[in-house]
Amino acid sequence: MQMVKVSVLYPYADAFRFDFDYYCTKHMPMVKDKLGDACQGIAVDRGIAGGAAGSPPSFVAMAHLYFHTEADFQASFGPHTAEIMDDVPNYTDITPVIQISEVLINARRSDPGPFHLHLSSSAN
Amino acid sequence: MQMVKVSVLYPYADAFRFDFDYYCTKHMPMVKDKLGDACQGIAVDRGIAGGAAGSPPSFVAMAHLYFHTEADFQASFGPHTAEIMDDVPNYTDITPVIQISEVLINARRSDPGPFHLHLSSSAN
Repeated sequence: MQMVKVSVLYPYADAFRFDFDYYCTKHMPMVKDKLGDACQGIAVDRGIAGGAAGSPPSFVAMAHLYFHTEADFQASFGPHTAEIMDDVPNYTDITPVIQISEVLINARRSDPGPFHLHLSSSAN
Repeated sequence: MQMVKVSVLYPYADAFRFDFDYYCTKHMPMVKDKLGDACQGIAVDRGIAGGAAGSPPSFVAMAHLYFHTEADFQASFGPHTAEIMDDVPNYTDITPVIQISEVLINARRSDPGPFHLHLSSSAN
């Protein structure tokens, strides 16, 4: 099953404002409702550290929206872009970076069946 | 259930080498085997675009390893660091950026039950 992942990355800064409570309980549920059936999954990460001991994370927060195709993303997100973007100042003053990716592997140990790496056709 | 996500981010460059076939069929399965039962999930993304029309992605590739705790990651990855890092030149010449994150939301429409946003305690 093809899957496209739209990531919204909030770069780290020494001084930043990011209201995770608002983000997780108000903003992301609103986004999910706007996207409707096109959205196949939602994830939110809070950056806690970089790779070197004591270093900060590259990104304060990362959100990921999953769709079967990039066209599904464009069609479902497009009509609500203004409303979604207008909500950003309610939780942060960081300007996010957007990345669109193709999901090659997405395997959970808790998924049914053995924990193996599911490869999409493009990875083979 | 608490979850920690270790992301390995490969920054985009105009000229880069990245062997996705080797990465998905050789490197990541090897990493999965080394991590053993501590690893709760594995994901690999291939960057296809940035947010602005026609722009490149910030990252050529992103890999994500999930653990219940950061201690689980350190204990399972640590003993194999040299062997894992020694394999990197076999698929890329990009120096990756590491980020450790706390997973606040990770919801799939295909998960059992309604598609709602599961919040960890720290997000409330």
